Amino acid sequence: MIFASDNWAGASAPVAAALSRHSTGLVPAYGGDPLTLSVKARFSELFECNVEVFFVPTGTAANALALSAYAKPGGVVFAHATAHVANDECNAPEFLTMGQKIRGLPGANGKLTPAVLASAMAEHPDGDLNSGQVAGLSLTQATECGTVYTAKEIRALADVAKSRDIVVHMDGARFANALISSGGSAADITWRAGVDVLSFGGTKNGCWCAEAVIFFNPGEGSQFRYLSKRAGHILSKSRFVAAQFEGYLEDGHWLDNARHANAMARRLADGLVRSGFARLAWPVEANEVFPVLPTHVINRLRAEGAVIREWPPAGLEGHTAPGADEALLRLVCSFATTEEEVERFLALAAG
Amino acid sequence: MIFASDNWAGASAPVAAALSRHSTGLVPAYGGDPLTLSVKARFSELFECNVEVFFVPTGTAANALALSAYAKPGGVVFAHATAHVANDECNAPEFLTMGQKIRGLPGANGKLTPAVLASAMAEHPDGDLNSGQVAGLSLTQATECGTVYTAKEIRALADVAKSRDIVVHMDGARFANALISSGGSAADITWRAGVDVLSFGGTKNGCWCAEAVIFFNPGEGSQFRYLSKRAGHILSKSRFVAAQFEGYLEDGHWLDNARHANAMARRLADGLVRSGFARLAWPVEANEVFPVLPTHVINRLRAEGAVIREWPPAGLEGHTAPGADEALLRLVCSFATTEEEVERFLALAAG
Amino acid sequence: MIFASDNWAGASAPVAAALSRHSTGLVPAYGGDPLTLSVKARFSELFECNVEVFFVPTGTAANALALSAYAKPGGVVFAHATAHVANDECNAPEFLTMGQKIRGLPGANGKLTPAVLASAMAEHPDGDLNSGQVAGLSLTQATECGTVYTAKEIRALADVAKSRDIVVHMDGARFANALISSGGSAADITWRAGVDVLSFGGTKNGCWCAEAVIFFNPGEGSQFRYLSKRAGHILSKSRFVAAQFEGYLEDGHWLDNARHANAMARRLADGLVRSGFARLAWPVEANEVFPVLPTHVINRLRAEGAVIREWPPAGLEGHTAPGADEALLRLVCSFATTEEEVERFLALAAG
Amino acid sequence: MIFASDNWAGASAPVAAALSRHSTGLVPAYGGDPLTLSVKARFSELFECNVEVFFVPTGTAANALALSAYAKPGGVVFAHATAHVANDECNAPEFLTMGQKIRGLPGANGKLTPAVLASAMAEHPDGDLNSGQVAGLSLTQATECGTVYTAKEIRALADVAKSRDIVVHMDGARFANALISSGGSAADITWRAGVDVLSFGGTKNGCWCAEAVIFFNPGEGSQFRYLSKRAGHILSKSRFVAAQFEGYLEDGHWLDNARHANAMARRLADGLVRSGFARLAWPVEANEVFPVLPTHVINRLRAEGAVIREWPPAGLEGHTAPGADEALLRLVCSFATTEEEVERFLALAAG
Repeated sequence: MIFASDNWAGASAPVAAALSRHSTGLVPAYGGDPLTLSVKARFSELFECNVEVFFVPTGTAANALALSAYAKPGGVVFAHATAHVANDECNAPEFLTMGQKIRGLPGANGKLTPAVLASAMAEHPDGDLNSGQVAGLSLTQATECGTVYTAKEIRALADVAKSRDIVVHMDGARFANALISSGGSAADITWRAGVDVLSFGGTKNGCWCAEAVIFFNPGEGSQFRYLSKRAGHILSKSRFVAAQFEGYLEDGHWLDNARHANAMARRLADGLVRSGFARLAWPVEANEVFPVLPTHVINRLRAEGAVIREWPPAGLEGHTAPGADEALLRLVCSFATTEEEVERFLALAAG
Repeated sequence: MIFASDNWAGASAPVAAALSRHSTGLVPAYGGDPLTLSVKARFSELFECNVEVFFVPTGTAANALALSAYAKPGGVVFAHATAHVANDECNAPEFLTMGQKIRGLPGANGKLTPAVLASAMAEHPDGDLNSGQVAGLSLTQATECGTVYTAKEIRALADVAKSRDIVVHMDGARFANALISSGGSAADITWRAGVDVLSFGGTKNGCWCAEAVIFFNPGEGSQFRYLSKRAGHILSKSRFVAAQFEGYLEDGHWLDNARHANAMARRLADGLVRSGFARLAWPVEANEVFPVLPTHVINRLRAEGAVIREWPPAGLEGHTAPGADEALLRLVCSFATTEEEVERFLALAAG
Repeated sequence: MIFASDNWAGASAPVAAALSRHSTGLVPAYGGDPLTLSVKARFSELFECNVEVFFVPTGTAANALALSAYAKPGGVVFAHATAHVANDECNAPEFLTMGQKIRGLPGANGKLTPAVLASAMAEHPDGDLNSGQVAGLSLTQATECGTVYTAKEIRALADVAKSRDIVVHMDGARFANALISSGGSAADITWRAGVDVLSFGGTKNGCWCAEAVIFFNPGEGSQFRYLSKRAGHILSKSRFVAAQFEGYLEDGHWLDNARHANAMARRLADGLVRSGFARLAWPVEANEVFPVLPTHVINRLRAEGAVIREWPPAGLEGHTAPGADEALLRLVCSFATTEEEVERFLALAAG
Repeated sequence: MIFASDNWAGASAPVAAALSRHSTGLVPAYGGDPLTLSVKARFSELFECNVEVFFVPTGTAANALALSAYAKPGGVVFAHATAHVANDECNAPEFLTMGQKIRGLPGANGKLTPAVLASAMAEHPDGDLNSGQVAGLSLTQATECGTVYTAKEIRALADVAKSRDIVVHMDGARFANALISSGGSAADITWRAGVDVLSFGGTKNGCWCAEAVIFFNPGEGSQFRYLSKRAGHILSKSRFVAAQFEGYLEDGHWLDNARHANAMARRLADGLVRSGFARLAWPVEANEVFPVLPTHVINRLRAEGAVIREWPPAGLEGHTAPGADEALLRLVCSFATTEEEVERFLALAAG
């Protein structure tokens, strides 16, 4: 009953198998090998357009380096106040962009709205030196509240960003989970909706260490190799990431993993609500559940071995905010979560 | 007959096996898992002292981040002119240390001497603002010329560095090869000789992607986690590096790999010299051979499928410098190099 | 009737005279001249303790470099949401501290409270990698809302900061105005109240270009010269700043300037309130007045040549917030503001 | 008899007078004042083309920020081994360009040659990630050896740079001295010869603190204000630099100052050579003299109060290198150097 995070799981079987399959033989280093080239081509199929793809070892590197490709001196990037880039990357986005600001903005359910974005951008008017220059919009998909932007919502936000000609970045650490939830295609919730660059995460959904930065507009990735190498992020044995992605993308394995994780989260959420003990802080649209539970239930679960984390109830108001003897939890399901775990957890929660 | 680089090989069998072995099950992320803890403890045994160990994904990150732990504003780090940190890391050491200079110094066989180091350090006197402040010495072991510093040579250089109280860093991308060559222990050629921090490389000697930064002095690694995370180098599934190192260090596997690679280089060098066609630019002390060969021999080898690289003959003078119809090559052997390959190469070279 | 900013004035007569006085003769560059040394010693008298003093050319440099002397990887500095370091320095504090975050916090009248500070700091618990590490508190004195922290208020905030052992920085771009207002000594509202490092501004109060960074704790400025030079902030002809400060500090000239500017602001505020047209957004405690005025009054003033600026009404709620036909203004008085200007402005405002 | 450096002088009379003249009255801050605008326009006349001009407080800032406007990740800037940007700026050029390398190259008389430049650039081939990307050429005019590039020499070097499309920067800390020496126009030795951006120094030739960065190609300065502000280099009272430049450029005053300084250096050099005691390390083409003198002469001069500095004899070979009882000196003349000083110095040197 481990719901601490989706990065507690190891590698899924097809990913591990692909890595084993490619472990022998000598091939060019630094991305010149045939496997890397073919896996990169696979991404263009997946996104239905010619994309530039770069492998990096961590999601934090993917986000910060993607933003650095569009960095401006005195630049300001807008993100939701709960976004990983704003809170959880130990200033990597600020550092690797030479001090750009990440401005965290409010919004229900972990999602930005065009009005809030427009208003924040207006505080940095063109030509004003002191407040810096608007430089980017970063959307987290799925969000840190477990919700998912629709293609239409992304489009509306991207339109605001494009009115000032700034980059739209998507942090897709849980892109597969969001994609399953959205019901659309990978293209629909990225470039067709105005996304310029995507951090495509594999690690939380079955890979060991596989993240890709994907540029949708020709030429915008032209300096990325240098930005990446300068920060120590070029892997010499590139095929080891390529192999993971081969296993990950093959036969829809990545979508199966995400579909499973989302379903487990759904089951968990439904069961908790049915129990009468819990209420949900935010809608469950991907693989994360944020229930407010009584402290005695939490204690009981932990006593039985559940690994669960309390979460800061930032932005919760009214009836959703935890009361005196309650706490907000974050429960994360992954490809490795089993129905049995979920059922056992629900049974324990119900008392 | 691939002698292009030791990072063209994949993962050695014990490394790949260890990774498979640990691919399932849920464990804490970010280094809190039992495997990471036990492997880190293994390093203290290996170095016969309590060390602080941090995993990073690349050798460039290891070097640049290690130096950043000791960075000073206006700092100057001294290294051999051929060193990887000086030439081959796309300014990562400058970037991640906020603009420290890496001063490349001359020295026969890719090795620094105390006299040259002392003289260069004297150009940055204490208190002089313009020339910056001396900040570190970085030694490459084995060197980029395929040679190896003895413990005594390291000690002499470290003494010069310590006279001004600057850090001694060792770039051990090929540490195993150097260790085999030195005949001493891992402690002998590191902290016992004055090394403060080591980039311990696994990738070139049988791992996929496994590098460790090792601090020998208590407390000096206290900010490393933050430095690493700020640059996007903290791997969430830490056990995937730990597993590689488990396989790598088990039963002396890493030393076996290095011993084999060194032996193949020796055999290659001896054969080339015997052929009468070649002369060696530098002594062969690890897994790299730098022969000067006639162009027609190089062409013949390439025509038969040998993957070999020309190397800039920087620093070569007199009879070692390539003549009009000659070129300097770098031939690198790895754990995956076979005797058959070497013999076939030699036979072809001999015509 | 120019109330745009206190940096629209030139140099006050004693400052200009001192500069002329010292314009000839050859003296050592880079701060080794007798005038620089004597002026620096003057600061120790002024603050009643041995301080380390460094001249820098701008207030932004003073703030960002002062913070850089205490920077940590992944560091977070807390400041009021309206602070200059948070909003008006084009990311200089982020850039020169290698990507530290400046977290803007709420608080009435432009001032932080211990409770808000403690709560924000708690979101960055010791050892938590993702959220970074707490690194500093920056207080603006006088604040950007024209108010002034009392020594007691500073002490209370410093105590919270010190509970986690982080630096307390004071942005004293309008230090003289605050000092006059406080009624205490320079020591009382700085080191005696827990301030570690001060940006001591001269430019807004009668100098051309004279700012000083003042360290109150021995040794903490030891790297400052290097930090400053690395960013291009060491002035070769140091005496030109020293001369300005000589004129500035002589015979209490700086305090006279600030007293005058504060008195003009008081007179302006009182007159506006008396007019019945205006209400004040925040108390007038230094040289700035923030009135909410009807648009037609603003238009009338501008038509008569008043140079005045609208100000974002951030944080204003209830009756202080501007209504439909109103706007918030910032009116800044300086040493050069005259009673005549103020009276003419008031007469025009009254219609 | 102070020949330590040209920045030991204060402000020349016309510069000091201009500053006094503009010390009163309220004008817009941050460069919006009429004086700043008119002085900037004056630079376009001076250079016979429309230039973009930015004021910065130091020469180090001018150089490092100018280079930062063209910075690339992993970028390499080529300069002479003795150049100020390479040796004397405490890593400001590395820091403000996010870790670009400054590669110091050899060359007689402090000057680069096209052959040496081309050869160094070839070590960073297009597309090679490890060695970084070529990013700029920085020429010092006059050089650190007191010599001056002709327009033709600049053109030849710029052609090499332009063959790889990299910026040509000129460090003109002593631009006026070089211009007088060259006999041409300001345009001839800058943009007409291929220079893209110039650090135009005023401080060493009569100003207090006045440097300008001048972009010759439209649009290339578009981000400079942000780069400058981000590093704390935007002066609020811009007119204080503008006033200095007004006095500096008026009626050819700057050229008079430089002509005088150069003439004093010439007189000094000729007298020393005539004395029979001295030989010159490098030709005297601007305001600096580098004589090799016997130690007993140096001691005698110092005993009589001469302020003179020994200089590292880097690059000196054969008969120019100092012998056992000799030392190389750098003697710098300025607008404030008098004939009497020179003659007294020569008389003392002659014994």
